[in-house]
Amino acid sequence: MQTPWDHRYAQRTQRMKASAIRELLKLVENPEIISFAGGLPAPDVFPVEQIREACNRVLTDHSAAALQYGSTEGYLPLREMIARHTSRSGVEIKPENILITSGSQQGLDLIGKVFINHGDRILLESPTYLGALQAWNQYGAEYVTVSTDDDGMVTEEIEQALRTGPKFIYVLPNFQNPMGVSMSLDRRVKLVEMADRYGVPIIEDDPYGQLRFEGEHIPGVNALDAKLHVQNGKYTGNVIYMSTFSKILSPGLRLAWIVAPDEVISKIVMAKQGTDLHTATFNQYVAYEVGHGGFLDQHIQHICEVYKERRDAMLDALEEHMPDGVTWTRPKGGLFLWVRVPDVCDTTEMFPAAVRNKVAYVPGESFHPLGGVTNTMRLNFSYCNPEKINDGISRLGKMLKEELYSA
Amino acid sequence: MQTPWDHRYAQRTQRMKASAIRELLKLVENPEIISFAGGLPAPDVFPVEQIREACNRVLTDHSAAALQYGSTEGYLPLREMIARHTSRSGVEIKPENILITSGSQQGLDLIGKVFINHGDRILLESPTYLGALQAWNQYGAEYVTVSTDDDGMVTEEIEQALRTGPKFIYVLPNFQNPMGVSMSLDRRVKLVEMADRYGVPIIEDDPYGQLRFEGEHIPGVNALDAKLHVQNGKYTGNVIYMSTFSKILSPGLRLAWIVAPDEVISKIVMAKQGTDLHTATFNQYVAYEVGHGGFLDQHIQHICEVYKERRDAMLDALEEHMPDGVTWTRPKGGLFLWVRVPDVCDTTEMFPAAVRNKVAYVPGESFHPLGGVTNTMRLNFSYCNPEKINDGISRLGKMLKEELYSA
Repeated sequence: MQTPWDHRYAQRTQRMKASAIRELLKLVENPEIISFAGGLPAPDVFPVEQIREACNRVLTDHSAAALQYGSTEGYLPLREMIARHTSRSGVEIKPENILITSGSQQGLDLIGKVFINHGDRILLESPTYLGALQAWNQYGAEYVTVSTDDDGMVTEEIEQALRTGPKFIYVLPNFQNPMGVSMSLDRRVKLVEMADRYGVPIIEDDPYGQLRFEGEHIPGVNALDAKLHVQNGKYTGNVIYMSTFSKILSPGLRLAWIVAPDEVISKIVMAKQGTDLHTATFNQYVAYEVGHGGFLDQHIQHICEVYKERRDAMLDALEEHMPDGVTWTRPKGGLFLWVRVPDVCDTTEMFPAAVRNKVAYVPGESFHPLGGVTNTMRLNFSYCNPEKINDGISRLGKMLKEELYSA
Repeated sequence: MQTPWDHRYAQRTQRMKASAIRELLKLVENPEIISFAGGLPAPDVFPVEQIREACNRVLTDHSAAALQYGSTEGYLPLREMIARHTSRSGVEIKPENILITSGSQQGLDLIGKVFINHGDRILLESPTYLGALQAWNQYGAEYVTVSTDDDGMVTEEIEQALRTGPKFIYVLPNFQNPMGVSMSLDRRVKLVEMADRYGVPIIEDDPYGQLRFEGEHIPGVNALDAKLHVQNGKYTGNVIYMSTFSKILSPGLRLAWIVAPDEVISKIVMAKQGTDLHTATFNQYVAYEVGHGGFLDQHIQHICEVYKERRDAMLDALEEHMPDGVTWTRPKGGLFLWVRVPDVCDTTEMFPAAVRNKVAYVPGESFHPLGGVTNTMRLNFSYCNPEKINDGISRLGKMLKEELYSA
């Protein structure tokens, strides 16, 4: 007799769905398809030789420690390096407030584990990062949403949403995934003040902040909050900040970090102990070796040059190939832009036809926590070179023209 | 005003405790202390040059893929290699049934996530692996325990425990952590039959199975179950099997795997997507490069020779230095043995004195899911060389003699 496994799953398992994006990515593995669907960094900018040298140095000088179990908090020199780096953006952080995670997705999971009871409401943007929804659905989260426009999360809607009693606010202020927009300074200040007034914590997810191609750096939500909350040189504030090496070094190393006040970080560290003991020691040593001499600063500049050219190529191609009635965002950094097509087009329904036409995007629907928006798509501009970008957008434009003509 | 973080944590967070072992390990970082506390492989057996060559080959031949995001399931050639290897022990496994995890601890966490509702009972050995308790406490698990003796989990007690309706059975049949004992073939067969009769799944955790120094290989619980449950070449059985590269290659790479029937593995894969997207791609490529030519077979032999010598050193030292009334297990493999001291000694209370005497162990109490046993300790024999082992056991013996004399 077979085991009736399906009677054994936890309730939360019934809410789990395979990520629409990851399933799409499997469909588009065919190299003939020009894919704007992934969130993939360009492999051309991986600093392969620096990583090779780092691996060699780590194995020569530190093999006994780097191949061994490590501390849950993470490799101290790496945390010190991150703390130094963060200080440059105006937030004084101690290494003790930093936890190294296996990618930012794990940061989201751990935050869910530590904070979310079944049925808790999370206040977030719509559209927002799909991975956060996927992480927090597993803990039974519900969502209260506010809109996002070209200046980021619409703070005018926040107070109403705060009065529903959310557990925390989740925001991606820089080059937001999926829209590519950034929150204005004004709105950041308002967000911090409002969260402070209601005593509701903010999770600031910042994977793309360093990838700014133009315009001035805008102080982070954590930096603005720190002005209110540093006491005796100790940060006691309202914000948990997350960032990652995935977009500035390599996602395949799975290295990211969380910054949180003392009492909070100790809870997240405990959750991580039970979850996977610690992040890969070897990878942390390698990232430190690559980064500690300042290499990442110049490398980020290089990435920005490459991505700026690709963004420009995509904006030009959109201008050239898109039919009337199609609009898009004009990101000043990051990896993505967001396209809105006329209401008569359903980008989810169009997707199989796009794949037949050998071009792929992510239908916008899945980024909306409460669903209901079907005329948007996320386009990634970091992965393909300018020529491919032009080809792909041309295919997409042709398709959309046919769609609109037949509608 | 400060944010009242402590009012924001989820209920599960209140159950979280820092691992006793990991906290102990911080205490014993002083190099003068001879530590039998960790579960650390000997760094002398890390195959540093093989890993260096593998890193170089991966970065030369596969950098674009190895540094990029990867599939949640894991690098296919690595899963194929594991499948081939598993087949040698008599269980035909397809790569599709294998998920690569960030260490076995993540396997335990994902199993908890997919199966455990708050209040669910898990049937396990007492004492058992602490990390499993730590993972599953976070999902609100309760425990039903059966004893373990020199032949492993006492199957005579299982039926009674099964009638309490546990969600699953958790067992470490080979060189169990913490006791070092292995389950006899007889008992394995009984366990599989009983689980089958009650329709209760088994989680078989096997990190040490390949580290056998003497005696015959005993078929795994999964192999015995497969005899009942292979239909048309497809495994539809009752067992989720876990193993790891931590003890045969390097724990710092954080690479382990789960094997489960089709429908179950797909749920665990979904849970992993939301948890950390995927295991570090680079590390998977490196492990494949190190392992695929058969190197691990000879390497495991080498590890066994080193550890056997250390186990023998520890058994000899115990014989020489321990006072009457102290007993211990005689493992045929693995990393640990288990010492029982007279009831008047409380190994938890003794611990600070041990550290003052510059020797460390793990008090046995924390391995007992329901607590209550205070006269045991776990000793690791893989990490220290024979000379240190003799010194450390001598210090421990002296201390115990004083303890007993003063009692």
